[in-house]
Amino acid sequence: MTAHVVAGAAEAGAESDRLAPDARALLGERVVGESLPAPFYVDREWFDRDLDEIFAKRWIFVATEAEIAEPGDYLTVNLGRSSVIIARDDEQVVRAHHNVCRHRGARLLTDDHGSTGTIVCAYHSWTYGMDGRLMFADAQAPGFDKKCFSLRPVALRSIAGLIFICLADEPPADIDEVATIVTPYLEPHGLANAKVAKQTDLIENGNWKLTMENNRECYHCGGHPELLNVFFPIWGFADADAIPERLRPATTRYRQATDEMTDLWRRRGLPSDRIVQLDTRITGFHIEREPMDLAGESFTLDGTVACTRPLADDLPDRRLGRLSMHLQPNMWLHITGDHAVLFSAIPLAPDQTLVRTTWLVHADAVEGIDYDLDRLTGVWEITNQQDADLVALAHQGIADPAYRPGPYGPSEVQVEAFINWYITTLRTTLGVTHQVSQPVSEISESA
Amino acid sequence: MTAHVVAGAAEAGAESDRLAPDARALLGERVVGESLPAPFYVDREWFDRDLDEIFAKRWIFVATEAEIAEPGDYLTVNLGRSSVIIARDDEQVVRAHHNVCRHRGARLLTDDHGSTGTIVCAYHSWTYGMDGRLMFADAQAPGFDKKCFSLRPVALRSIAGLIFICLADEPPADIDEVATIVTPYLEPHGLANAKVAKQTDLIENGNWKLTMENNRECYHCGGHPELLNVFFPIWGFADADAIPERLRPATTRYRQATDEMTDLWRRRGLPSDRIVQLDTRITGFHIEREPMDLAGESFTLDGTVACTRPLADDLPDRRLGRLSMHLQPNMWLHITGDHAVLFSAIPLAPDQTLVRTTWLVHADAVEGIDYDLDRLTGVWEITNQQDADLVALAHQGIADPAYRPGPYGPSEVQVEAFINWYITTLRTTLGVTHQVSQPVSEISESA
Amino acid sequence: MTAHVVAGAAEAGAESDRLAPDARALLGERVVGESLPAPFYVDREWFDRDLDEIFAKRWIFVATEAEIAEPGDYLTVNLGRSSVIIARDDEQVVRAHHNVCRHRGARLLTDDHGSTGTIVCAYHSWTYGMDGRLMFADAQAPGFDKKCFSLRPVALRSIAGLIFICLADEPPADIDEVATIVTPYLEPHGLANAKVAKQTDLIENGNWKLTMENNRECYHCGGHPELLNVFFPIWGFADADAIPERLRPATTRYRQATDEMTDLWRRRGLPSDRIVQLDTRITGFHIEREPMDLAGESFTLDGTVACTRPLADDLPDRRLGRLSMHLQPNMWLHITGDHAVLFSAIPLAPDQTLVRTTWLVHADAVEGIDYDLDRLTGVWEITNQQDADLVALAHQGIADPAYRPGPYGPSEVQVEAFINWYITTLRTTLGVTHQVSQPVSEISESA
Repeated sequence: MTAHVVAGAAEAGAESDRLAPDARALLGERVVGESLPAPFYVDREWFDRDLDEIFAKRWIFVATEAEIAEPGDYLTVNLGRSSVIIARDDEQVVRAHHNVCRHRGARLLTDDHGSTGTIVCAYHSWTYGMDGRLMFADAQAPGFDKKCFSLRPVALRSIAGLIFICLADEPPADIDEVATIVTPYLEPHGLANAKVAKQTDLIENGNWKLTMENNRECYHCGGHPELLNVFFPIWGFADADAIPERLRPATTRYRQATDEMTDLWRRRGLPSDRIVQLDTRITGFHIEREPMDLAGESFTLDGTVACTRPLADDLPDRRLGRLSMHLQPNMWLHITGDHAVLFSAIPLAPDQTLVRTTWLVHADAVEGIDYDLDRLTGVWEITNQQDADLVALAHQGIADPAYRPGPYGPSEVQVEAFINWYITTLRTTLGVTHQVSQPVSEISESA
Repeated sequence: MTAHVVAGAAEAGAESDRLAPDARALLGERVVGESLPAPFYVDREWFDRDLDEIFAKRWIFVATEAEIAEPGDYLTVNLGRSSVIIARDDEQVVRAHHNVCRHRGARLLTDDHGSTGTIVCAYHSWTYGMDGRLMFADAQAPGFDKKCFSLRPVALRSIAGLIFICLADEPPADIDEVATIVTPYLEPHGLANAKVAKQTDLIENGNWKLTMENNRECYHCGGHPELLNVFFPIWGFADADAIPERLRPATTRYRQATDEMTDLWRRRGLPSDRIVQLDTRITGFHIEREPMDLAGESFTLDGTVACTRPLADDLPDRRLGRLSMHLQPNMWLHITGDHAVLFSAIPLAPDQTLVRTTWLVHADAVEGIDYDLDRLTGVWEITNQQDADLVALAHQGIADPAYRPGPYGPSEVQVEAFINWYITTLRTTLGVTHQVSQPVSEISESA
Repeated sequence: MTAHVVAGAAEAGAESDRLAPDARALLGERVVGESLPAPFYVDREWFDRDLDEIFAKRWIFVATEAEIAEPGDYLTVNLGRSSVIIARDDEQVVRAHHNVCRHRGARLLTDDHGSTGTIVCAYHSWTYGMDGRLMFADAQAPGFDKKCFSLRPVALRSIAGLIFICLADEPPADIDEVATIVTPYLEPHGLANAKVAKQTDLIENGNWKLTMENNRECYHCGGHPELLNVFFPIWGFADADAIPERLRPATTRYRQATDEMTDLWRRRGLPSDRIVQLDTRITGFHIEREPMDLAGESFTLDGTVACTRPLADDLPDRRLGRLSMHLQPNMWLHITGDHAVLFSAIPLAPDQTLVRTTWLVHADAVEGIDYDLDRLTGVWEITNQQDADLVALAHQGIADPAYRPGPYGPSEVQVEAFINWYITTLRTTLGVTHQVSQPVSEISESA
């Protein structure tokens, strides 16, 4: 058996020579079923490697089309030391360019978002079109050729209104397959035409992988009393037999709700099969539809809708359960009948991660009439803060020399899948041979 | 003659191979009688080495039993990147464990001190007893063995109520000899049953070794007018003949007070011989009894007691002079008839050191009746701040490329002893051969 | 042809062995006519090299004699990790010493400036004369020789009241030639006897070389509307034919004003030939006299004087144009008939630079009567802030991995000269062989 997360042959190679022997050993010897050794979480060396090998070579979720609805709208995104301009041009094409002047390198756009017809450098007024072409550069010698100084482009891919970028010259091609699989799930919910009800930035004091591990299990959900009203606490158990006795009532309700919802999804033509390709492809992901508890309509305390206007005109059902997707390395989302909530994790430092949360509602939904903003966002805002506190505790302890990797339990199988994807990706891009890692999907099948 | 500070053969060895040639040279060539070359004080490299070779391998003073008087009381101590829980269990046993969950590494206790019956991890509720045993871990697979996941223990030693810990697997064994020597000096003062009147944390903007050098001489005491009321300024002169003419009156008073006090100490059965083993053993220390000036009773402006209730019931004399002890690398204390004041220095960064000062009084002494807190702590609080300012100046100048090691004078002999202990310890644990360093005790004998 | 910036043979040598191959390649392969590769601007490694090879080996402008007018006056200057005391002694001699006690290294003077008769260390009261001699050290052993512990001196050179220091043991000798050339230009303006009207410190969030590049061209002057009232925007074009059409009116005014001013300068005996030796000697510089626009008298919004009392008694003309000098690596100045404004750039961090601006007026000029301070300093204060914003943008963009060196245009010839001096200096002191760089003066001649 061979590793399932593979890259083009061009990706690995010369770089492997740059890896010091102790880093190579750490990467090669990671024990399946355990949390990572501390250096991966706390050392600047591995943080830089994460930026270079993961965040600069894989597809990264950064925004939604709803954030740049009109021609001329733009937003700037920071990934590591890179700043990228994402803009909608006059022909409604969404493009990405590096936010760096080609003259003497000045940063061009400094606002998080805005609207403009051209991009003018504040330093010497070099002026670019929204398509990146250099249109004007004053006082140049006769031989100067503007065509040589366009803004440098960045690969961009929009899937049902979700914007992914890749900083690499040759982005992973399997994004096409992933788009083909997930688009039928996402498209009926109308994200591309939705509006942003709210967006929050929360800085967690922990490594970005701890942020991802945290949202990949509900073993810690005892710390989320508000979320647990509607979120079934059995989420994450790969094997139903492993669910503890005390969760039997929840399991019973979950099974009943699943039967009801599956029937509805079928009638509405909504695909609902669970697809788990978390560590079996370059652009690992999973997507699933699940019921929710209580009224089962939305992420509110009683489960009833937070927005009376359905997110998609063609899906008027209040009780639609949730469509959830997770895409390696940094995004997850939930879509209910009335809204969508999307999360991205962006590494800022070995011990700092930006979690951006975006709530989308129907483009015509009116705040104060169709929805109350606090009710729409309350459950996830408090849940995010609870998670931030837990991630900070995890980082603190892992930075302690006394930390030793500990065991993942039966409900932490998606944590293992994330870590397996991560380690396998680094091994591939860095050209490290290793003992074979068994994909989580096969582990759970054979369990 | 060979180095007098020795370690087990196991301590040195493989590590010496990790030392770069320039670090090895710096360590091997230090000139006796001069301040250290700048890298020892300012470079991150040596700071990390200090944490690894000194603070993680030697006995470190961190607290007093008086701070955790009742069963269930705990405190958390930070040493470098390590956090350690020190707690008193139901059988009054004081224990130390690493403050890290064995599951996914979360920090367990986040308060400086508190009281609890069990230690519950906030992340997934793994629960430990005060003895470190894992008592509860939810939703684990059948084969999971709680016995494999106890908290990792830390070596702890209490000497007459003073708590020392050692992070090494094999702590220096000579702590037993040191305890045997110093316990008869300390025990009559009843520290183990005292109460904490006040504890202050002061961050000095200098390397921890500059903090220690500062408190190892009184050559700078001109900057301490409040302390000098009662503290004889001749302290630190290894050779009485070297004391300058202008200090003759103080010398005369010192000799007369010494005669009176020695007689009292003998009558009270208090050992008073000066013992100096600062750089002649692994756990270097010195202990001495000395008189104080003016009323000679306490660290107050006029030398009279700050607490009317004697510290120990069996030692009712107001004028008892002071018992002083210094133990390498990071503690010193003074005990008078009415109170004890203890100091610990904890490195925070190459240029930052935490100085924790603790004042102990009799357990039944009542603030406002038996003592006024400002009067009890005033002299040392102002003295600490004066020292912090001097340490900051020393660090600033040493960080200047123009700094060159300068000469210690006749009153700085204990500074040399500290530095000699430090250098010899590093040479031993790092396996660096070197020119022989003559211990200070022999230097002063032959002087 | 060989490099024109040369150093003594002693300067290069052993150090070249310390340079890693990639640093050596970066230094050897810099492309003429383009901004530098990013590491020179953003990496700590090159920042440290700049401090060691440029700021510790070349003559650095740090202050004016006007700042220490009276005997006993001193100021302290920080250059990298070095602090230097610059003081005027009782015989009016200006001297420089390292600000470090020879005992245990404490920083001696902590104020930016002041006045004193002796320098007393706060730690143990070692006392030095203003000439650096150790005068007093208490409680030393009989053999102690004070003569061995004078303060360490720093090379100092005052040119017409401008104070330059050099931290090297063998400062570049060509300062004598430079002084001979520029003194006749500067001396008539009486800087040595002027007074400081104001001094400001501005921290720019960019590398010091970006600060210098910024002030070496007026291509960006569209961002300085206040300055452009009097400053001809054609400054910096090496070749008049390259000046764009839209600047023709300014060019016409400039030529007319030049004719008028040249006549006046000749009558006043003021040398006015432009001398450009920016990258053709170790202590590179250029000096020139130029007219100013509008009233042409001063840096005010309408060009009329800001101070009614002329700066030099012998030069009573209000309209005198400006004398401007730039000296590698870190100073530039402008002198008009009524005042002088001097600038120095001091590196604080890879992305932080201190810009100190000093305004000098006649020693007897009275604020509120002869000049209004806001009017005197207003144009450069706002211009400095505009430049700080541009430098910050440049640094941000260059720190982005997408940055690539871009082309200098016809008006950025002095930027290229600065960079050529910088690269050639490093190649010389670090012993890197390279492709020959053509000095800018020859480039412009052949253009």
